[in-house]
Amino acid sequence: MSVTEPQGFRAAGVAAGLKTGDRRDVALVVNDGPDHHAAAVFTSNRVEAAPVTWSRQVVVDRRVDAVVLNSGGANACTGAQGFQDTHATAEAVATALEISAGDVVVCSTGLIGELLPMDKILNGVTAATNQLSAQGGPTAAEAIMTTDTVAKQALVQGDGWQVGGMAKGAGMLAPALATMLVVVTTDAVVDPEELDRVLRTATAQTFDRIDSDGCQSTNDTVLLLASGASGVTADPQALTEAVTTCCAQLARQLIADAEGAKHDIAIEIRSAATESDALEVARSIARNNLFKCAVFGNDPNWGRVLSAVGTTAAAFDPQTLDVSINGVEVCRSGGVGEDRSLVDLTQREVQVTVDLHAGDVTVTVWTNDLTHDYVHENSAYSS
Amino acid sequence: MSVTEPQGFRAAGVAAGLKTGDRRDVALVVNDGPDHHAAAVFTSNRVEAAPVTWSRQVVVDRRVDAVVLNSGGANACTGAQGFQDTHATAEAVATALEISAGDVVVCSTGLIGELLPMDKILNGVTAATNQLSAQGGPTAAEAIMTTDTVAKQALVQGDGWQVGGMAKGAGMLAPALATMLVVVTTDAVVDPEELDRVLRTATAQTFDRIDSDGCQSTNDTVLLLASGASGVTADPQALTEAVTTCCAQLARQLIADAEGAKHDIAIEIRSAATESDALEVARSIARNNLFKCAVFGNDPNWGRVLSAVGTTAAAFDPQTLDVSINGVEVCRSGGVGEDRSLVDLTQREVQVTVDLHAGDVTVTVWTNDLTHDYVHENSAYSS
Repeated sequence: MSVTEPQGFRAAGVAAGLKTGDRRDVALVVNDGPDHHAAAVFTSNRVEAAPVTWSRQVVVDRRVDAVVLNSGGANACTGAQGFQDTHATAEAVATALEISAGDVVVCSTGLIGELLPMDKILNGVTAATNQLSAQGGPTAAEAIMTTDTVAKQALVQGDGWQVGGMAKGAGMLAPALATMLVVVTTDAVVDPEELDRVLRTATAQTFDRIDSDGCQSTNDTVLLLASGASGVTADPQALTEAVTTCCAQLARQLIADAEGAKHDIAIEIRSAATESDALEVARSIARNNLFKCAVFGNDPNWGRVLSAVGTTAAAFDPQTLDVSINGVEVCRSGGVGEDRSLVDLTQREVQVTVDLHAGDVTVTVWTNDLTHDYVHENSAYSS
Repeated sequence: MSVTEPQGFRAAGVAAGLKTGDRRDVALVVNDGPDHHAAAVFTSNRVEAAPVTWSRQVVVDRRVDAVVLNSGGANACTGAQGFQDTHATAEAVATALEISAGDVVVCSTGLIGELLPMDKILNGVTAATNQLSAQGGPTAAEAIMTTDTVAKQALVQGDGWQVGGMAKGAGMLAPALATMLVVVTTDAVVDPEELDRVLRTATAQTFDRIDSDGCQSTNDTVLLLASGASGVTADPQALTEAVTTCCAQLARQLIADAEGAKHDIAIEIRSAATESDALEVARSIARNNLFKCAVFGNDPNWGRVLSAVGTTAAAFDPQTLDVSINGVEVCRSGGVGEDRSLVDLTQREVQVTVDLHAGDVTVTVWTNDLTHDYVHENSAYSS
């Protein structure tokens, strides 16, 4: 159940003093090969953190030997000094492991706009190097947590190979990635172009379909590393499915641990004309604060759903919209349907289904409710 | 300070039992002429309420004799019956005033997805007709309140003519209009085409530049009525300025009374390449829940501002962005600027200035913070 379950990987997570209370905050994942193939997707936020700028260049040649990750500071909006700090971190890893700094991905997460305490980071890199082990995956997953309350890991079995993963993220979760660091490993034998295709297919169906609060981060990174250590060449379709399943499990864990959330909400859009229509409608609901507050209050206020749908450009006729909440069709043909008092919202998981009657595409986006705890957590985040 | 201050208008607001506790909930505003010119803008939400569908047709000929407004029910997503109810309301007003139903605008606000209690509405129309007076503006302003805590009114003096206005709205406030009903009156002499141009210019600069929670309503209506009763022909530019000032005052009152808000936030975008760039950037900040929570917590977390700016397609270089909060330049050239602890956020009004260094357009959008009270109010709204 971790990034070190697939063969060919070692990892460690150590406490370097970036976070308070002796919690782990620096993680290292190393691919011992024989292959060192990698694929990555990064935030689409144009204000990107120094480690994202660095790592984009690292993965251009599709070779990654190690990834170093820290919580306790995002190293975003930190100018030239921030980039030098990322570079110095990669160099420290490279020196310790006798590899090239150009093959070291760097990921950071935490508060934006403050320089990292580099003495602590570099001590952390040394400590993590010394503790690397094939059982180290869980400690690495722990070290990347910020406001997360649990570590997120996943494991999928292939035919002679495995896919393991870890992720962090609890707020600032939105399509086009979020404050989210994800490392997925596999020991399958797969060529790097195929690996890139696999990762893009998987993230489009998983991380790009969760939307906690509509806020996109400066630091998002999803990295897929392939060691080839199993010696088994993976069928591309099977590998795509395994990586997608691994990413879906991690994405679901992110929503389940979203800041302050009391409900996990699956928004299913049925009978859309196109996938982009379905996603636009789903996201307009997922980002509607009034809807999210209503779910928090166990209130099946379907008017909030319809008014969100009405703001989109998707193909539909307002007179034929149907909306069900937890199986009760509260809105039928754009008007009043079954009695809303029949809806039970006391369970954590909520299913909202909107039928657009405009085509044959179905898409599900996961989100969560908007709660007092979200407001509390984010009104006290940096102070 | 009301819609009946300009000459030629009578109004009334009565309690018809739509809201609990004997509060006023049906309002009537009548234009006694000699002119009956009108201009209107409506919600861009494709799921529009029955009264919006009706009123769009009423204003096509640019003549409006009366407007009837109710709180306590939006009459949205109510199907054919809802439209018949709106029609019946207009007919009742027409019969009582001996005018044509086709010259009666209808506005509703309240919960979506429930039919109006038509017996109460029709009794309310009768009572309001009987109480019409040239001093009735303030009672009408009171009757359209929902979660508003204060009535919103405004008055602007022209050269021999006046502009008066009333508005309601406390949540679901976003560009392209919001849960917002606004009636603006003037006794200036002005031709109907000019009146339409005046209203569109004014709303684009005022109501379209407030964004409380990014949620667009199904019922928004802004109506401008001209009686010509002053006998003074208004200079078009002067009338545009007066109507814009009246709308700006009402818009500012809406934000000041936004649900649960503890801070009113002016987001000023400077040196944008185009107005649409400036508005896109301003709205991305205004709708960012993390930013809004931070302001609630008196936390000048400027990283939230930059990450919101980074999600837009506007012209800017991330390396040259400057951000000031209440006069303290916390972000300079995309990096750390003055000490964030210098920012004092204890006052209600907050000024956030973002300099894009990309052109010469400046735009201000008003929003508010995201608070426990917003979550509380909207998690218990319909239940």
